[in-house]
Amino acid sequence: MSLPYILLIAALFTAAAADDFCVGDLSLPASPAGYACKKPATVTVNDFVYHGLAAAGNTSNLIKAAVTPALSAQFPGVNGLGLSLARLDLAVGGVIPLHTHPGGSEALVVVQGTICAGFITSFSNKVYVATLNKGDAMVFPQGLLHFQINSGGGPALAFVSFSSPSPGLQITDFALFANDFPTDLVAKVTFLDVAQIKKLKGVLGGTN
Amino acid sequence: MSLPYILLIAALFTAAAADDFCVGDLSLPASPAGYACKKPATVTVNDFVYHGLAAAGNTSNLIKAAVTPALSAQFPGVNGLGLSLARLDLAVGGVIPLHTHPGGSEALVVVQGTICAGFITSFSNKVYVATLNKGDAMVFPQGLLHFQINSGGGPALAFVSFSSPSPGLQITDFALFANDFPTDLVAKVTFLDVAQIKKLKGVLGGTN
Amino acid sequence: MSLPYILLIAALFTAAAADDFCVGDLSLPASPAGYACKKPATVTVNDFVYHGLAAAGNTSNLIKAAVTPALSAQFPGVNGLGLSLARLDLAVGGVIPLHTHPGGSEALVVVQGTICAGFITSFSNKVYVATLNKGDAMVFPQGLLHFQINSGGGPALAFVSFSSPSPGLQITDFALFANDFPTDLVAKVTFLDVAQIKKLKGVLGGTN
Amino acid sequence: MSLPYILLIAALFTAAAADDFCVGDLSLPASPAGYACKKPATVTVNDFVYHGLAAAGNTSNLIKAAVTPALSAQFPGVNGLGLSLARLDLAVGGVIPLHTHPGGSEALVVVQGTICAGFITSFSNKVYVATLNKGDAMVFPQGLLHFQINSGGGPALAFVSFSSPSPGLQITDFALFANDFPTDLVAKVTFLDVAQIKKLKGVLGGTN
Amino acid sequence: MSLPYILLIAALFTAAAADDFCVGDLSLPASPAGYACKKPATVTVNDFVYHGLAAAGNTSNLIKAAVTPALSAQFPGVNGLGLSLARLDLAVGGVIPLHTHPGGSEALVVVQGTICAGFITSFSNKVYVATLNKGDAMVFPQGLLHFQINSGGGPALAFVSFSSPSPGLQITDFALFANDFPTDLVAKVTFLDVAQIKKLKGVLGGTN
Amino acid sequence: MSLPYILLIAALFTAAAADDFCVGDLSLPASPAGYACKKPATVTVNDFVYHGLAAAGNTSNLIKAAVTPALSAQFPGVNGLGLSLARLDLAVGGVIPLHTHPGGSEALVVVQGTICAGFITSFSNKVYVATLNKGDAMVFPQGLLHFQINSGGGPALAFVSFSSPSPGLQITDFALFANDFPTDLVAKVTFLDVAQIKKLKGVLGGTN
Repeated sequence: MSLPYILLIAALFTAAAADDFCVGDLSLPASPAGYACKKPATVTVNDFVYHGLAAAGNTSNLIKAAVTPALSAQFPGVNGLGLSLARLDLAVGGVIPLHTHPGGSEALVVVQGTICAGFITSFSNKVYVATLNKGDAMVFPQGLLHFQINSGGGPALAFVSFSSPSPGLQITDFALFANDFPTDLVAKVTFLDVAQIKKLKGVLGGTN
Repeated sequence: MSLPYILLIAALFTAAAADDFCVGDLSLPASPAGYACKKPATVTVNDFVYHGLAAAGNTSNLIKAAVTPALSAQFPGVNGLGLSLARLDLAVGGVIPLHTHPGGSEALVVVQGTICAGFITSFSNKVYVATLNKGDAMVFPQGLLHFQINSGGGPALAFVSFSSPSPGLQITDFALFANDFPTDLVAKVTFLDVAQIKKLKGVLGGTN
Repeated sequence: MSLPYILLIAALFTAAAADDFCVGDLSLPASPAGYACKKPATVTVNDFVYHGLAAAGNTSNLIKAAVTPALSAQFPGVNGLGLSLARLDLAVGGVIPLHTHPGGSEALVVVQGTICAGFITSFSNKVYVATLNKGDAMVFPQGLLHFQINSGGGPALAFVSFSSPSPGLQITDFALFANDFPTDLVAKVTFLDVAQIKKLKGVLGGTN
Repeated sequence: MSLPYILLIAALFTAAAADDFCVGDLSLPASPAGYACKKPATVTVNDFVYHGLAAAGNTSNLIKAAVTPALSAQFPGVNGLGLSLARLDLAVGGVIPLHTHPGGSEALVVVQGTICAGFITSFSNKVYVATLNKGDAMVFPQGLLHFQINSGGGPALAFVSFSSPSPGLQITDFALFANDFPTDLVAKVTFLDVAQIKKLKGVLGGTN
Repeated sequence: MSLPYILLIAALFTAAAADDFCVGDLSLPASPAGYACKKPATVTVNDFVYHGLAAAGNTSNLIKAAVTPALSAQFPGVNGLGLSLARLDLAVGGVIPLHTHPGGSEALVVVQGTICAGFITSFSNKVYVATLNKGDAMVFPQGLLHFQINSGGGPALAFVSFSSPSPGLQITDFALFANDFPTDLVAKVTFLDVAQIKKLKGVLGGTN
Repeated sequence: MSLPYILLIAALFTAAAADDFCVGDLSLPASPAGYACKKPATVTVNDFVYHGLAAAGNTSNLIKAAVTPALSAQFPGVNGLGLSLARLDLAVGGVIPLHTHPGGSEALVVVQGTICAGFITSFSNKVYVATLNKGDAMVFPQGLLHFQINSGGGPALAFVSFSSPSPGLQITDFALFANDFPTDLVAKVTFLDVAQIKKLKGVLGGTN
């Protein structure tokens, strides 16, 4: 048999190189399709492995909950692959407040505890709520308002995945009350009372 | 010259028929890509023309505003074409309340009056607000919370387009207060006071 | 309540930053998905607003018409958002000559006057023509030949949107007669008479 | 070893069945994503094989050329696969007239003879022309006007592929002259002389 | 305040209805974009929840492992959402044999135990292998050969997500040895010895 | 007539420039959507023409076959166009071994000789095999294992096209035996005997 000959073929194709993945290089300009790719020669297996979801998030906060993301910004190996991950920790009474992912759908799997989760449709404003136990899964369609609440007696843990490496996260309360969005403008576009707005701006560090 | 021969080619290709468009047939089961297509033979120019945006919407309501959609559900000619339209009418003091389009970006062109419009980014909660006069255009990226307010002294009119035939519309207030979303659940996932929630449920016809 | 704790979450997500949009930086190399993104920190609300459609185009020309584009090259805020805009001004007798947008579908809304518009399907060569009055909308599926004519007694104005930030514009006459496309080659691939080709090359500044 | 057990796994997955392909069923309503799928159980290898490109097209016609398509309408096996094929036969002097594929890019490989091919860009109206010999390949970007001419002394044969199962084919001459597109409208939107239009309508069977 | 008026708007939009999701109806013809959608009126929260991943798969088999899928065929709620899920159970010594997902990338999170996982690139045939502990995540780019092995002293559990509702699963051994693929043909296209092929066909129930 | 005026329009649009194509610049960082674009001003017709498929590949090797690719890495003109090409040369007895294209579907046209080709579905492990003569076409859905064998008495030639500019190529034997994939790991994930693995590693230059 003739080894060198067949290796010629391999060599030919090696020139075509790494179209298999595009590990993100966050130091380069991005494009509408995501981060620019690291040079294939510098990619190692560590680019495809993420340890950041192993530790529980710190739930000693107002919402008694923590979201630990593994999106392309934290885990550049998912860049270009059409998915990403996150970890949800909810202490007893913990809540992931109402939010959307503008750029992707979400699938959640409960690993510990009991979670009450729900989403609201757009035109019809229908609310879909379910109680999920260990091993149960639920999906939240792209861009729709949804939430997760620890409805059990102990801590809850879930892993979630998204249909995009960078789905975004817009927490409604943060969008309204944790920035310099002028109070009168917030009032006009939400019908909320000014006192209510000022109260929550106080809690969330908002101004104006 | 030999007409019949060249027509043979035309005939050959005619068999391949209408891949140019897919006018939606709302009576058939839909797919993730949109409505099923009307049979090409039944399509007329009227399928591609929409008169429903010609008349002003009725702004004699709480928000002094009206949104007239020309999405694939109203205007099936846009099905499969990757875009759709709507008309915004804002009386003096009119407001299109905070909302998102879960499935598409929006571009707005002011045709009459003055509109104050803005959107809020996801992770950084930054608010981008601008005052738009006649002929000015503004874009609102997919899925982000945004609003439009008549900030002028007379009525305002704008035409908007979307990057999808069915971008969806989720008005935050309607999602929270115009349905049977239980008050205590709303309170938990928004931090709003129960009294505030009950007040707005009253206005918007919500229950629970 | 414990403000610093909840802000930790916000900080965590801020690191994930601006996946919400990708304002084009025309000075950087582009990609098949569009222009490279400006650094989020340098983006302002002005990147999302475009004033260039406010003024009427100059219709003192052969076609008595003007197209004012707001594509990603003129309005980099639409980069990555899946849509773009343009303004059509047609003086009395004005014509937007037969053309295609190779990369996107178009939706047109008449704001002033009366426009006769039409498109031609591919395999079946069927012509769809309609007369559009103020407020009427019409769609032109991707890549198909279409045209707009002022068919009223006064000036006409329309805003159009596209299903792509860079749909392209190929005016058939310009493609044939406004360049160095050799006359004999044009004749061969169009069956037009040489005299006809030379005449139009003369009008449109073509050579060869 | 324990055969039945591992087969349980196979059985489990068999339930998920044929997501690998979607052979088109032309008798069912289509969707924006293409034809509906034949039931997997009725699919055979013959659905993936096409014999229709084996025979030369009839070039005894005005253009001394023939296009034999293997798009999803003729070859339903390509439905959903993102590509399709066609065969070009050009007798001596044969021409595939100026045309576009509204829905896909094209790649051509010359199998016999010599072909002069070219395309025209959109905004800049630049003409790219090349002479291709046996084994040479050329690409024509989506939606742009292009042509192929037999520029050799014998017959020419090429196979082309498209980046879509249904790229469409719009031959400019057919769109203008082989239908009922009114002569005065054609004149208005192309600047062609009425006599020229009437002449070509005569050749191509057009009316009006 | 004037409740009926604002509800007019809601009513208007309700007509546009359920573009938010497309729960699959497996009894209808599918399309290249997935299953046809259930009528929105018949959709309940149960369509978005899946209990099938809660129970451990049966690992009393040859590979001491089980894959429990929640793809669109098992969990029609993911249809059209761009993602899906599965559960991997690996007893001590368990192996998910070399396989690909032709239609999607995969992200894995270890919930229990230790897993040695790896994938092989295409042109360069580079092998990326990692040992993953509880909470570690790894991604496997679309279509590439990969595997998972329980490399710890106890059972292992992982949840995986895919970037498609129907990513497919092609286990190399099953493709070669668990069907009627003729032995001599297998030998020709793999260089495996006939005895080796016959041995594995025996184990996996293959014929020919 | 007034030439300068109409040229104003052309000039306006020229500013929007080359969105028609994105010829790859392999020296710049890539993105998930492909290579960065060459500056339009430096693009010539030669970027769209490829001569590398004209010469037969060298089949004096173990498999008596050669694959000559014209993917975006070899033929940067296909970058961003959604397709690419390759040439298959098979001497008498030649075989393109079992392989997948992780990122695209394939269409093959036989130009000379007789080819036996086949692919295997994912879940159901069904084998579809056909004998193709001159002019016959066959498609191989994305990511599925497939092969081509010269089953005729003389040399065979085929041109193939892909639904992606960079579909990838993963030859199963190369992935298993032509690298440093440890023999015991290969055995574990394939059930192949160690002796068989060592034998093929010897042939294909593998180690470990």
